[in-house]
Amino acid sequence: MVVYLVGAGPGDPELITLKAVNALKKADVVVYDRLANEEILKHAEGAEFIYVGKKAGEHYKSQEEINQILVDEGKKHDVVVRLKGGDPFVFGRGGEEMLALLEEGIGVEFVPGVTSAIGVPTSAGLPVTHRGVATSFTIVTGHEDPTKSKKQVKWNFNADTIIILMGIGMLEENVKEIMKYKDPKTPVCVIEKGTLSDQRIITGTLEDITQNNIKPPALVIVGHVVDVFKKARS
Amino acid sequence: MVVYLVGAGPGDPELITLKAVNALKKADVVVYDRLANEEILKHAEGAEFIYVGKKAGEHYKSQEEINQILVDEGKKHDVVVRLKGGDPFVFGRGGEEMLALLEEGIGVEFVPGVTSAIGVPTSAGLPVTHRGVATSFTIVTGHEDPTKSKKQVKWNFNADTIIILMGIGMLEENVKEIMKYKDPKTPVCVIEKGTLSDQRIITGTLEDITQNNIKPPALVIVGHVVDVFKKARS
Ligand SMILES: C[S@@+](CC[C@H](N)C(=O)[O-])C[C@H]1O[C@@H](n2cnc3c(N)ncnc32)[C@H](O)[C@@H]1O
Ligand SMILES: C[S@@+](CC[C@H](N)C(=O)[O-])C[C@H]1O[C@@H](n2cnc3c(N)ncnc32)[C@H](O)[C@@H]1O
Repeated sequence: MVVYLVGAGPGDPELITLKAVNALKKADVVVYDRLANEEILKHAEGAEFIYVGKKAGEHYKSQEEINQILVDEGKKHDVVVRLKGGDPFVFGRGGEEMLALLEEGIGVEFVPGVTSAIGVPTSAGLPVTHRGVATSFTIVTGHEDPTKSKKQVKWNFNADTIIILMGIGMLEENVKEIMKYKDPKTPVCVIEKGTLSDQRIITGTLEDITQNNIKPPALVIVGHVVDVFKKARS
Repeated sequence: MVVYLVGAGPGDPELITLKAVNALKKADVVVYDRLANEEILKHAEGAEFIYVGKKAGEHYKSQEEINQILVDEGKKHDVVVRLKGGDPFVFGRGGEEMLALLEEGIGVEFVPGVTSAIGVPTSAGLPVTHRGVATSFTIVTGHEDPTKSKKQVKWNFNADTIIILMGIGMLEENVKEIMKYKDPKTPVCVIEKGTLSDQRIITGTLEDITQNNIKPPALVIVGHVVDVFKKARS
């Protein structure tokens, strides 16, 4: 009766940790949603798989429904793995699942993963920090929970690098907000399908990046570390 | 003639990726410094090991000296692994090593790792983002390069969570700076030796956290996500 909240890494199936592989090997049940790469599931040979992501024509499972599935499976089995892309606590709603499980007296173990927010730029040779260029970086969602009424993301982050996840659907709005605080000529890099064989890298500036046809999953890196990346490639 | 810049993860030797293990297995030479756990080196059986970290009584190797070692080894061998704690580009000076190698025409490959900045709180059950609590987080160094004259870290990050690396030596100054912008009662969590068997977790607030005797390596998490962690533990 333990549920492992496990990070699967950003996509490349080799970017999973040994600890995640070991949890998958022990799993009776694996509960997963949209993964960048389902090859990872092979580590859980013999387990039961429960897909809780989007299905064509069907509705998304609500977070409450997913919590309930985890509680039910957690009560029935010795080892349940809840597998999430990247790290389970980086915009992964792992915190909500953790609280729901603990409330029902079910043990929870945590296995961090390489988050796409850092792993994707690193894999591409784009350093999120760099001496003399960036001593801080902010990771933010570009798509706030629409049911949230109160607070809105304020984009005046004073970090040297800004990394936006889920930022493509509202890229124009996000970039407009950032330009209130940063020079429109600030370099931007977008990485689509990072660490996968069909990865695509696009560079530009805050004022022209939206002219590209970008498809999710992708992340957006804003700041002069993009110049370091360009220098390395030149 | 390729140098792999490889992240070793935050400490727990199981928190290394399969890709890092595979790079270590191929390595002719492994260049490493202070690692949270040297057990990781066992994956590079038969390789030559070059330690470039601090030695009792000796001076630190300068970054220029390390770059030179990497260039020299890169020219001599098929596969060199430059192993770094966490992720190589999160305050790891991987960018400088990358540029030095590329300038000499040596190929560089990148293997991201689980950064301590996220992997340590996640392993402890502390979510760095949480619905309704934190939609952004900033990772910052609490110990700026002292040779840097120009810019100083400005602590008015408007992110919901602030995670400070290398923040213990100057904790009092750092916390004082943050209190200019955040309520002194804002919850703080310090995790010492995260993911290791002698991990220590301390909670408090901005105004009282410095009353603890904290020893590096440790990281500091500031923000209301600490309340989620405390709720989970209660
Ligand atoms: C719901 S968030 C989950 C993030 C995940 N927990 C993590 O730590 O990477 C999904 C977002 O992550 C980013 N993302 C995930 N995988 C990616 C990839 N392979 N390439 C680029 N961006 C990716 C995209 O911005 C996407 O909208
Ligand atoms: C020079 S930085 C390198 C960070 C590394 N590249 C990474 O991504 O984790 C070293 C700092 O990382 C943090 N750190 C590294 N390992 C840690 C651990 N096991 N527990 C807590 N903090 C750790 C500490 O703040 C330490 O001062």
